[in-house]
Amino acid sequence: MLSGHTVFVTSSTKLKMSEFVKFTKLRSTTDCTFWAKFVELKIDKFKLDEKSINLWGSYSLQSLNEDNFNPLVLDFTSFNEDLETINNKSSVICFGHMINTNTFEAFRQINPEQFIDSMGKDIINSIQDGTILQNPWKLSLFLVLAYSDLKKYRFYYWVAHPTPLKLPEMYYEEIPKSITEEFSEKHVEDLCNNFLHLDCRTKNYFTVLISKENKMCIVDLATGINVININNEKQSQDYTEIYFAFYDPCTSSNPGWPLRNLLCLLCWYCPTHYFSKIIKFISIRGNKAQKSLVFKLKTKEYKNYKNIRDNLFLSHLVGWESNSNDKLGPTIADLSDTMDPTKLSDKAINLNLKLMKWRLVPNLDLEKICNLKCLLLGAGTLGCSVARVLLGWGVNNIIFVDSSHVSHSNTVRQSLYNHQDAIKHKYKAHAAKDALLNIRPSINTEGIVLHIPMPGHVVGQSMLESTKQSLKKLEELIEISDVVFLLLDSREARWLPTVLCAAKNKITINAALGFDSYTVQRHGTRNFNNQISPDLEVKNPRGMDLGCYFCNDVTQPGNSQTDRTLDQQCTVSRPGLSQIAAGLAVELLVALLQHPEGVEAEALVGNSRDNINSNDAKLVGLLGCVPHTIRGSLWNYDTQLTITHRFTSCTACSVPVIIEYKNRGLSFVLDACNIPNYLEKLSGLEEILKRPDLDELCYALDNISDEDEDDQKM
Amino acid sequence: MLSGHTVFVTSSTKLKMSEFVKFTKLRSTTDCTFWAKFVELKIDKFKLDEKSINLWGSYSLQSLNEDNFNPLVLDFTSFNEDLETINNKSSVICFGHMINTNTFEAFRQINPEQFIDSMGKDIINSIQDGTILQNPWKLSLFLVLAYSDLKKYRFYYWVAHPTPLKLPEMYYEEIPKSITEEFSEKHVEDLCNNFLHLDCRTKNYFTVLISKENKMCIVDLATGINVININNEKQSQDYTEIYFAFYDPCTSSNPGWPLRNLLCLLCWYCPTHYFSKIIKFISIRGNKAQKSLVFKLKTKEYKNYKNIRDNLFLSHLVGWESNSNDKLGPTIADLSDTMDPTKLSDKAINLNLKLMKWRLVPNLDLEKICNLKCLLLGAGTLGCSVARVLLGWGVNNIIFVDSSHVSHSNTVRQSLYNHQDAIKHKYKAHAAKDALLNIRPSINTEGIVLHIPMPGHVVGQSMLESTKQSLKKLEELIEISDVVFLLLDSREARWLPTVLCAAKNKITINAALGFDSYTVQRHGTRNFNNQISPDLEVKNPRGMDLGCYFCNDVTQPGNSQTDRTLDQQCTVSRPGLSQIAAGLAVELLVALLQHPEGVEAEALVGNSRDNINSNDAKLVGLLGCVPHTIRGSLWNYDTQLTITHRFTSCTACSVPVIIEYKNRGLSFVLDACNIPNYLEKLSGLEEILKRPDLDELCYALDNISDEDEDDQKM
Repeated sequence: MLSGHTVFVTSSTKLKMSEFVKFTKLRSTTDCTFWAKFVELKIDKFKLDEKSINLWGSYSLQSLNEDNFNPLVLDFTSFNEDLETINNKSSVICFGHMINTNTFEAFRQINPEQFIDSMGKDIINSIQDGTILQNPWKLSLFLVLAYSDLKKYRFYYWVAHPTPLKLPEMYYEEIPKSITEEFSEKHVEDLCNNFLHLDCRTKNYFTVLISKENKMCIVDLATGINVININNEKQSQDYTEIYFAFYDPCTSSNPGWPLRNLLCLLCWYCPTHYFSKIIKFISIRGNKAQKSLVFKLKTKEYKNYKNIRDNLFLSHLVGWESNSNDKLGPTIADLSDTMDPTKLSDKAINLNLKLMKWRLVPNLDLEKICNLKCLLLGAGTLGCSVARVLLGWGVNNIIFVDSSHVSHSNTVRQSLYNHQDAIKHKYKAHAAKDALLNIRPSINTEGIVLHIPMPGHVVGQSMLESTKQSLKKLEELIEISDVVFLLLDSREARWLPTVLCAAKNKITINAALGFDSYTVQRHGTRNFNNQISPDLEVKNPRGMDLGCYFCNDVTQPGNSQTDRTLDQQCTVSRPGLSQIAAGLAVELLVALLQHPEGVEAEALVGNSRDNINSNDAKLVGLLGCVPHTIRGSLWNYDTQLTITHRFTSCTACSVPVIIEYKNRGLSFVLDACNIPNYLEKLSGLEEILKRPDLDELCYALDNISDEDEDDQKM
Repeated sequence: MLSGHTVFVTSSTKLKMSEFVKFTKLRSTTDCTFWAKFVELKIDKFKLDEKSINLWGSYSLQSLNEDNFNPLVLDFTSFNEDLETINNKSSVICFGHMINTNTFEAFRQINPEQFIDSMGKDIINSIQDGTILQNPWKLSLFLVLAYSDLKKYRFYYWVAHPTPLKLPEMYYEEIPKSITEEFSEKHVEDLCNNFLHLDCRTKNYFTVLISKENKMCIVDLATGINVININNEKQSQDYTEIYFAFYDPCTSSNPGWPLRNLLCLLCWYCPTHYFSKIIKFISIRGNKAQKSLVFKLKTKEYKNYKNIRDNLFLSHLVGWESNSNDKLGPTIADLSDTMDPTKLSDKAINLNLKLMKWRLVPNLDLEKICNLKCLLLGAGTLGCSVARVLLGWGVNNIIFVDSSHVSHSNTVRQSLYNHQDAIKHKYKAHAAKDALLNIRPSINTEGIVLHIPMPGHVVGQSMLESTKQSLKKLEELIEISDVVFLLLDSREARWLPTVLCAAKNKITINAALGFDSYTVQRHGTRNFNNQISPDLEVKNPRGMDLGCYFCNDVTQPGNSQTDRTLDQQCTVSRPGLSQIAAGLAVELLVALLQHPEGVEAEALVGNSRDNINSNDAKLVGLLGCVPHTIRGSLWNYDTQLTITHRFTSCTACSVPVIIEYKNRGLSFVLDACNIPNYLEKLSGLEEILKRPDLDELCYALDNISDEDEDDQKM
């Protein structure tokens, strides 16, 4: 028996040898794609679940110098469901489990010894119940304990390679030698070739037999154990030499950690041999196994090895990795700097939203919201605030339409603009687009400078061409949008968009401010086969029976800008109001989108608000109820939910108006702009106002008296 | 009589002379200070008033070449109330009226002929009624018709120098000559010296007499007319020569426009002379009158001059200036580029606010709002939104306190941050400050990175010094603030600020978000002589009887961060919610400040909301009612106004707690952080909870069941 200290092996590796064998510990490394994938899964799939997650780890086959180390790599493929999808001839695959705690506190409070004992006991169990022989690669089980700060992209993790503490000490029976010293050139070649062609499942552990005919055979571990035991019993030796081989990521002169669990397995399956004979191991090293070493080891001779073996299998498990400070403890992966900022931003933005699905609204359809194409008509106080809430919801497609410039009075109220925009006199549409890109570089946004033709604002010959172009562009923009927000500064500016949205049946959300009151509403849906008045008795009308902004008007919109004094031209509204109205406008839209009945959702009205049956699926959606019109006041902090029914003689959304628009396009729009009372005649409103039973009829146009908001310039 | 065309005068001025006299028209110019002052007055004083505004205009005495022109200058002094404040030896002062229309439409619709006739009739009236003789300088009356686009700093204006159209034609009796040709050296010297020492009121028009003793006398116009008429009657001549002098801003060979009204005056007061004699005029030119010319003029001889004179005084008025295109029409002064952007921004920002006073809330005290010193504890979703509404209200002093950094998930919800802030990992407090300066460069803002000590978050030895510093800084910040906003991410973080605000009796506004609900409240005021429980029967309690955020708690705040999963750590709230809550928080504050009872304003409660008597001055302020707590939900769009009474055993604002804080400062705070139940013992809450009559007592802690908001990280 060797008791020397330093010996040399011909592989030119300096071997420091003590009496008993020390095992070089393993190291692992996490690729940033590992955490990126984990974040994705955590948010979308695992959510609050803290259960163990199955992982694959891999050693990539490479030829390293002694100073280097081949780490267990965790990357995005670690989360693949089955091994096949990552089978890779040039790596050695390990299997593991990860526990990710939801809080840092929970992470800190986990006892590492208990953790490794409970999570690693599979190794001992599967050796004892024999299942390990079918899957010997499970001997290299690894464990990950982690806490992920998903907001900051900081990951605390600690990896263990569990193995029983009380492994009987092993001694070197011979100086470790290179395979070239142990084997003939032919055998070395056979070993290397065979190793490379082994399945990744078998590469970790296998058996090398040399037959009586001096042929090298590569067989699995179970076969090797069988041969050992048969040899022991029969004393007949079909195979003259048996080597147990293991993939060894270590480069030092000592065998690596994976040998420990192999020794346990041999101790359990061939204890007589284990406690009395010399066992030969091949530590597979190098990218083609060409740097492999041969270790010949044996235990002390024990009188009662059964005790020793029982102790081994009752023993606590060990195997926590040291961190970069060479201390036992978790490693921190801080990916906030290394990830692409734009992608990081996108991930982070979606994070908050996806968290809603963890506990609060598991069925929330975020895709529907993110993919929404929103057209914001008006990029003033309301336009900016609406865009901000849409950003918050992760909406990816926002187009602004506005014809004015950023002025110095805008910046403190219009939350997308700053002092420089005013100095540069930027178009609001352009400045708004730039602001969104500054907040979220990946957003799909456009700013269109466009003046909307308006009834009462006469289009002269000189403006004919530009009016034609504006109409064409507006039609295109509404066509490609899912939702149109009316955030304009006058009543008449909302008319043409209302007509176009009705003709194309787009979701339309309208918001308007007074001094200390606001109106937020969704327009009803339009079906042009339906010319019958809605039933006014229905308590909660459906989308198709709801009105538009103009449905309770008894005159057509006209030029309200003429003769307006400065205080009427500017937003003279309490500054908090636009934030409140914009918040409600977007939330109303989102609630509508997440309602099972969608745009046809029944409208909640104020007087039924207190007794809502939350099982009433027509009224109550995923995010609650969806009123038609919300009117609020800062004077007494009241909010009223009111209804305007679809009006069959509406100057904007009624069938005669829409048909005329569809037939005549631009010339219809020009008539509406230039001819007083044109729309009143066309819609039939004029006739109605002449009827003797007008008073009764006015009952139909209910809520007119509620309309106390002034449209004012935003 | 001369009928020549081109003659030469020895003053080296080329004189183009026709048979009859032409008058060179006047020009005026507006200094940007004129419009800046006007904007100020329009917004603060005139408001919607379109009445005529009195103006001063001035010609600065200067020596110009023939090609140049001395314009009538309007600057900020034009609006001075009386002439004395602008009396200036080196200028000639004119008097005028300005009409500024509130709308461009009104401006366009004014008929210039009617305008000049009606606004200029004072000239004719004051000649006819004799008042002009006391104030001959009013002969140079000017008129300004203007429309000011105060939002864009564009000013449309048109100046007129009214004079009757039908002035009888005058002919040159002699070639115009320089004063040096007309007068002796001594007389020229006398003229110049005397002119310079004339009062600015007399510089426009005066009389130069040459006595029999060949002495030159400068007298006023009335005296000159008198002399003429006496001469005519008496045929005795104390004065051998009479010259009527007028300040002439023109440099051409023709007399300037001011002569016209002088001729009218003479036509009225000495018609015989006017229609039969040669009249001599001195056109005062140059900075010392040294370039003055002498014109000797006469009319045709009329048989019946009375008709002519009557026609003159019944005639329409003329005198509109030509604009820079030499066309009759308004000039546009676009000051948006020339004004200092920062000042422009400040003016523009205040504009929108001041407009509220024009019509809607004339008594609004904007100074009180602008000068408010606001401390925002928390610069997250709520902090950013609150700052934006404060900006909108023109608040000039905003300090942010926050200890965290901008992360990628923040930018879409926290409206002061962008992608670059997240990449740079800026402190939120600093990024928020920078954002405000980018919006309004003149704002007074600071960002303080400070961690607020919290009950349940144990302060170990290592954190002692930093806790001490944090407390000191927080005390200082609250001391110098008028209002403290609690916009923090946990219940316990609000505790210390609540204690400090109660101890210093500062206005405290609290806002907290749930998933689809919010709470906004004002804390009650605190008077430490008042240890009696409030009367719970009062329907609308005053400020002193209202509770704080902790007044309905039955346990002291503890560490709520431990063991929170990601969805509990982040704002999992519907994105519109923070805008709504922030809007309400600031509007609640502003309504409170503008309430006649201020912080003691009675709190509106929900069930009395519909029957408010708007004359109830204790309940209804300038901006409506001021509730104690507003709770709103996006699920059914309801808002509830609730009350929590001041609780004499509150763990934050009760007398025993405040006294202990005042006595022990830091050690009190450390005990509160480190000792469980310390605050419950101190406040007496522990005793109360042990009492057998607890159930009855709980009635006192009403609304506890309403407290369903989760504090969540912002």
